[in-house]
Amino acid sequence: MSAAAPTVEAVVAAAGRHVPRLMTQVEDRLAVLTGGHGPLLSRHAGETIAAGGKRLRPLLVIVAAGEAAAAESARVVAAAAAVELVHSATLVHDDVLDDAPLRRGRPTVLAAGGRAMATATGDLLFSRAFAELAQGGDAEDLRILSAAASDLARGEQLQRADAWDAEVTEERYRLRCELKTARLFQAACRLGARHGPGASAEAALGEFGRRIGLAFQLLDDVLDVSGPPERTGKARGTDLLDGTVTLPLIRARRRDPALAALDLRTVRDPARAREVCEAIAATGALEEARAAALELVAAAKREMPALGEAQRRALGLVADGVVARYR
Amino acid sequence: MSAAAPTVEAVVAAAGRHVPRLMTQVEDRLAVLTGGHGPLLSRHAGETIAAGGKRLRPLLVIVAAGEAAAAESARVVAAAAAVELVHSATLVHDDVLDDAPLRRGRPTVLAAGGRAMATATGDLLFSRAFAELAQGGDAEDLRILSAAASDLARGEQLQRADAWDAEVTEERYRLRCELKTARLFQAACRLGARHGPGASAEAALGEFGRRIGLAFQLLDDVLDVSGPPERTGKARGTDLLDGTVTLPLIRARRRDPALAALDLRTVRDPARAREVCEAIAATGALEEARAAALELVAAAKREMPALGEAQRRALGLVADGVVARYR
Repeated sequence: MSAAAPTVEAVVAAAGRHVPRLMTQVEDRLAVLTGGHGPLLSRHAGETIAAGGKRLRPLLVIVAAGEAAAAESARVVAAAAAVELVHSATLVHDDVLDDAPLRRGRPTVLAAGGRAMATATGDLLFSRAFAELAQGGDAEDLRILSAAASDLARGEQLQRADAWDAEVTEERYRLRCELKTARLFQAACRLGARHGPGASAEAALGEFGRRIGLAFQLLDDVLDVSGPPERTGKARGTDLLDGTVTLPLIRARRRDPALAALDLRTVRDPARAREVCEAIAATGALEEARAAALELVAAAKREMPALGEAQRRALGLVADGVVARYR
Repeated sequence: MSAAAPTVEAVVAAAGRHVPRLMTQVEDRLAVLTGGHGPLLSRHAGETIAAGGKRLRPLLVIVAAGEAAAAESARVVAAAAAVELVHSATLVHDDVLDDAPLRRGRPTVLAAGGRAMATATGDLLFSRAFAELAQGGDAEDLRILSAAASDLARGEQLQRADAWDAEVTEERYRLRCELKTARLFQAACRLGARHGPGASAEAALGEFGRRIGLAFQLLDDVLDVSGPPERTGKARGTDLLDGTVTLPLIRARRRDPALAALDLRTVRDPARAREVCEAIAATGALEEARAAALELVAAAKREMPALGEAQRRALGLVADGVVARYR
């Protein structure tokens, strides 16, 4: 692997000039969609969107659409914006549930406006997502996005239901990742495919998205244990403090009897969470989880559908971008 | 006015045999839509829907569609179910914000499953609403419902932003009612019209829905002050305890200097809330607010679009049903 991580810019450069143009249009569209709902709500919705993030999901829509995105640009931009709105809506609601003061280094809507404002902002972002996709008039697009949104809600709920249960199975953990993360990545690729290479590539591109989505979540969970905080932007062991059991702990418990006996509810402060992170790391579980993620990305790249060379290269770079967070 | 309030059953009887058949289909469809999301989430979503309520919004969709509903039944049922799902989603989220233990005499999702479960349940119900409407493949339907859902979120947010502000204007109060309640009633009628009498009746039926929605909210706010609890199912002055200023208080403050000087934050317990309710009632403000609602209903019935006699009679009964809560 190269030392320099592929960035969105690299994907954009490799994928042709239409990608930066469309990504700019997505940003513009998101700004429009979050405006016009009264000053307070627009401010919070707008700031949520403006705070950004990696924009990985809209990028997937655009790259999955390939060359056709240039011609079908309004539809592709709408789908990309809609996917990002659903993602943002769930983040806002998650922050309410986690009582999170900061996200991406900025105050959350919860911190700035309170629970009611944050709940309404999330609901608004949800509604705008479906309104935006409805503009294109494609009912199948809407079915894809709404199914993914339902899965996100179910994944979120499973995670909360499993909280503090150290005996959660790996199968259950994977189901949660599937619902909470992979389905929206899959939907992003399917939406792009539908307005690009077409129905013949939809399932294969969806599977590509699903796998890199799973890898993304696995690596996110590894990063929570490994840190370092200056790179991840959050303290090590945040998941532990929330009672969220992820693959590193599930695997580590098999090897370390002290971890197997640990009552998660006794992990109450950041210092203790760091200690548990160290114990998990010492078992080699992080390398296992990382390897599982890398294998998913490799499989995604290996089994990419038959597409033009430029598009395959661009998709490969997005896949590498997911892993890059880990280097 | 007659002593016996028109009920849903009366509307159903007056509107023709297709109405009970379609309302049953709506119930069946709601049960299907809330299932299949894992046992926990399905249980909470299903119980939310099963707890029922008046089903006024789906009834409006069906009655607005008129005779055509019998032929276009799948589309009409889907639209009716979608509107009820959006309504239910907002109730679940409202209960989270209000820390409400009971709704319609049953434990809320919040009480039964906690904040995370309730937030996820609301998000799921939202997603299912749009998924259901998307089945019909009508983009304009989706635009109508998503715009109404955005308005609900904005109305909710305005209400929270205005909390404890006794000087809120009547204009602002009406805007809140418009967004929080009337727009979904309007959307229900527009959706029905689109699958029934058609585009020519859509605006007029929408206006009918908007007016009875406003009347519904005004009367709901009157009932909160007037009680009696055994009829409304909640203690008098619940809005006051939440800091929600409604038309009766806005009007009463003009007449009673003690009410004008009242700091709402000092109203902290049900006994004090009851006293304030009595003071509001003593000014005659309840009669004023009730008269405003009745005038809205009368205007809605007066300016009903040119439709068949059976449909006009059914719409009139729905309008009377809204007022009937007050008799």
